This record gives sequence, C-alpha cells and structure tokens, in this order.
Amino acid sequence: MSDERIEFIVAHASGSGVVPYIHPMPFDTLAIVGVGLIGGSVGLAAKTRGVARRIVGIGRDERNLSRALANGAIDQFTTNLAEGVAEADFVVACTPVDRLAEDVIAAAHAAPMRCIITDAGSTKGNILAGIRGKMPVDGPEFIGSHPLAGSEKRGSANSKPEMFDGRLVVVTPTAESDPEAVAVVELFWNQLGARTMRMDAHEHDQALAMTSHLPHAAASALAGVTPPEWLTLTAGGFRDTTRIAGGDAELWAAIFLANRDAVRDALDQYLDRLGTFRAMLTEETHAELVRWLSEGKKVRDALGS
Amino acid sequence: MSDERIEFIVAHASGSGVVPYIHPMPFDTLAIVGVGLIGGSVGLAAKTRGVARRIVGIGRDERNLSRALANGAIDQFTTNLAEGVAEADFVVACTPVDRLAEDVIAAAHAAPMRCIITDAGSTKGNILAGIRGKMPVDGPEFIGSHPLAGSEKRGSANSKPEMFDGRLVVVTPTAESDPEAVAVVELFWNQLGARTMRMDAHEHDQALAMTSHLPHAAASALAGVTPPEWLTLTAGGFRDTTRIAGGDAELWAAIFLANRDAVRDALDQYLDRLGTFRAMLTEETHAELVRWLSEGKKVRDALGS
Repeated sequence: MSDERIEFIVAHASGSGVVPYIHPMPFDTLAIVGVGLIGGSVGLAAKTRGVARRIVGIGRDERNLSRALANGAIDQFTTNLAEGVAEADFVVACTPVDRLAEDVIAAAHAAPMRCIITDAGSTKGNILAGIRGKMPVDGPEFIGSHPLAGSEKRGSANSKPEMFDGRLVVVTPTAESDPEAVAVVELFWNQLGARTMRMDAHEHDQALAMTSHLPHAAASALAGVTPPEWLTLTAGGFRDTTRIAGGDAELWAAIFLANRDAVRDALDQYLDRLGTFRAMLTEETHAELVRWLSEGKKVRDALGS
Repeated sequence: MSDERIEFIVAHASGSGVVPYIHPMPFDTLAIVGVGLIGGSVGLAAKTRGVARRIVGIGRDERNLSRALANGAIDQFTTNLAEGVAEADFVVACTPVDRLAEDVIAAAHAAPMRCIITDAGSTKGNILAGIRGKMPVDGPEFIGSHPLAGSEKRGSANSKPEMFDGRLVVVTPTAESDPEAVAVVELFWNQLGARTMRMDAHEHDQALAMTSHLPHAAASALAGVTPPEWLTLTAGGFRDTTRIAGGDAELWAAIFLANRDAVRDALDQYLDRLGTFRAMLTEETHAELVRWLSEGKKVRDALGS
C-alpha cells in the first residue's frame, strides 16, 4: 500500500450541483493542526503507512514543531494555520476540545474546497455546536472523529506510529454529511491501523462520559483524597485505578466542560451506586455486598483482562 | 542462603519466665492455612528460597490442595487444621479475612508452643479483636502481617514464587508482642523477597481503607454503572481504572465489612471530593477544575508510573 497510489473517487456535492472529483490517497498534502501526543502519532502513522506524500504540522510552539519534524512526524511546519492548510487534501485537527471548533472553522475557510477536515477530539457535540453556521457554504466538509487511543503522557515526544493499531475510531457524521467524505475519513483511520464505527455525536458523548470521562474524574478524586505519606502503602490496585489521574489537567478540564451535562449524568449514577455501597457497609449485609460487587465484576469480566 | 541453615536465636517469653530456645530458619515445618493465590505463592516462594524443609498445606478443598501439591507449592496437605499445624514451627494463615481469627485461634491451640503464627489478611484490627482472650496462655504467639501483593485473579493456579519480590509487607505487632517473634515474622517475609514495615493495626486499617479498599469500591462502582453495550467504547483508561473490579466478590465483601468504619470514612472523603467536582461542572469554572485535577495529578505523579 505504501508505494501505491489509490485513486479514490469522491463525488463531492457542492452548492451548485454535484462536482465529481478524484480524491487521492495517498494524499498529496495532509495537514495536522496541533502536533502533540495524538497529532504526532497521526503524523508518524501516516508517514509509516504511506498515507500522505507530505505532512504539514501546524501549531503554536515552534520548539515542539521542530521536535516533531526531527521525529519524522511531519515534513514541514508553520504557526500560521491558514498557510498550513492552503494546499491540504485532508486536515486532522488535534488541538484541545475547547479549541477545536475555532480551528476547524479557520481551516475550512483557508483550505481548498476539495479538502476534508476531521478531528481527534474526545467530545463531539460541542464541536458541531461550535461550528454551526460558521462554515463556508461551498467549502471543505467537516466530519468528526474520536480515536479511542492515547496515554496519560502528553506531547509529541510520546507519539508513536502504532498508536492507532487495532484501536477504535468513532466517526460522527450528521444527517447533512456527504457520504463520500465520511467514507474518506473512515478510510483514513483504517489506513492508520484503526477500526472505525459510525455514531451520532450526542450518543457518542453520552457513552464516552461513562466510559472515559467519569473514570478520569473517579481516578483523579481517588488520588486527590490520598495523603501522600500513605503512597508507600499502595499496591497494584491503587496504581492501576489512579493511573489516568496523571493526565494533563488543562486538557481534561476542557473535556469535562465540553461534555458537562453527560458527565454530570454519569457522575450521578456513580454517586448513587457508591451510596448504595455505603448503606451496605453500615448495615453489614454481606450477601447484598457480594451481589453489588458481582454486578461490577460481571461487567469488568466481559471486557477481558 | 537456600542451602544454609540459619540458627536464629529467639528468647521466647513464656508465662513461667523466659525460655530461650533456638528458632531455626529454614524451618523444619511451615504450615500454610488456606492455599489460594497468596497461600500458594507463600509456598512457592518459601520452597524456591529454601525457607522451609517441609511445607504443609491446610485447606477445605482437596482438589485445590492436590493442585497446589502438583504445582510444588506444598509438600503435603490435610483438611484437618489441628493435624496440619501439629509440628509447625511457623504458620501463615491465608484464609479470607472473615475466617482468619478463628483459624489463628485454632492453630494456636494445636501448634507446638514454640510456633509463631502470622497471617496475610488485608485487614488487621478485626483479627486482633477476634482473637482477644481466646489464645492459649502459654501457646504460640500471633503477629499480624499484610503483604501488599496480589492480583484480581484468584486461586493457587495463579500463584507465583516471585509474588512478594520487592513488595511491602506491613507487620502489625501490639504492645504485648514478643519482640523476637516479631523479628522472626519480619525475617520470614524478607526471606520471601519482601520488604517489611511495622505499623499499628488500627493505623494500617485506616491507611489501607484509603489506598486499597476504597479504590476497589470505586473501580467496582465504575464497572457497575457501565452498560455492557458501551464496553466497545472503552480504552486503556477504563481498562486500568476498573481492573480490580474483576476481583473475587466474596473476599472483598469480607474485607469491606472487616474494615467498615475506616472504609466509610475514606468513602466519605471520596464522595465529598466528587461532590466538589460536580459543583465545578455546573458552574463551568475551568480554572478551579484545573486546580482540582492538578491536586490529584500531583499525588499520582509522586507515585511514578
């Protein structure tokens, strides 16, 4: 695949009628906005798998961009977003969730009309809400993506080409999305080694509040209540359960606020379940406590080790 | 060490005055009551490191004991506790925390006077309370231990000789404990590869409620509120945070009830911290949320990855 040019025919619906054009993959130019852990990994994976001839990195921090260039995640860089996407066939916005909407809008206004824009944000509804009515009428299409991959470590220094291998990427088209653009976005992630799944953005946010955002808050709160002098008295359980509490606080604060209603709903279910546990402790009901624990065990066992 | 006999002189204080006697390590006979994950690992580690000439496994389930014998964790077994400890120099009780006190009492009444008894329970205060006034006056001494090692997997099939390598074992003597018996217990765990630390049983239980028992409840509740159909939408964060929810429900119910006051105190701190988080979501206070997350991150970062 890496040396082979796949011609991917995309019928792109513009305002003035269907304008069929050939969408090439490997792309001539892939632009990555925000070259951190995920953006850098997109670059490395795309490079390794021959998904693009040229990868342009766009960011704010020249030192970080230089490091990504040295790592081989990008071929060139600029701190000017409009300049960076000017020739892009495909743009992946990998900035924090509270900056994604504005970056997508800016990219859409500066990129060629044929360009397709996606992102890698952990929340999807807020981006759709943020770009609504602000995208160019005949300009590039935006299709949201969320690769379920990452690490509590941040920065392009921790990027790796196998970041997406076998991982799931949720793609969140809307009723208005161009089906071919959706297909290109899915093909892109597949080329990086990931599986894809289509989902409604709102449903995605509800599910991820429970499967990702709540666990982060739960882990952070556990670490937060633990007196540091007791850390010597921890073992593998504490270590695993709190691992993600080491994640970037700014990024996670943005995620929580971007999805705050769904996170609050998930949290309320969690608090309710812990309240049940508290009552069982008080009443010393061994059998009920076993049942309560078994319910959690059943779900966890279904996931595998 | 394994081929060398260390003569360890222990001055054992009996009711009728100090009776100095030689406490040999390797022990002639080590008895393990309860040959599951931890008991089996005690046997394998003791065998590998030459800590005992003969290891007697005591349990209820003959099939499990046969398996432990086949694995080399024990040299012989019996389902009769009194018979099993009759010639023991050292007994390690590895049964669930709600059975430990009665097993320690039974072992103390059947073992030779020179014998020292310890355990491997996750809670310590309940055992001291359970054995109070029920130990033979001139009989074996009990010194509590808690090896901070284990796994969400159970059973002697998952035992391993390196289970205690570099792990911490908290040893909880009381004001009445024979200092030499405490030293033998510490030496025993050191021989299995562990580090030891002395701590008051009540203080141990307070700390472990926070560093071990609360994380288990938190992990279980997370798994318990997650609809199984969303498990495909989980990644490493959920996986790590909920891993221990796969632990044995019976064992953990017993631990929670054995330490219920301290667990409730730890839980209340946790619920309070999550309540603060909930309020921040509602008020959309990004800077405060970053501070809240940073507090947890600071503790977790201090632990290392």
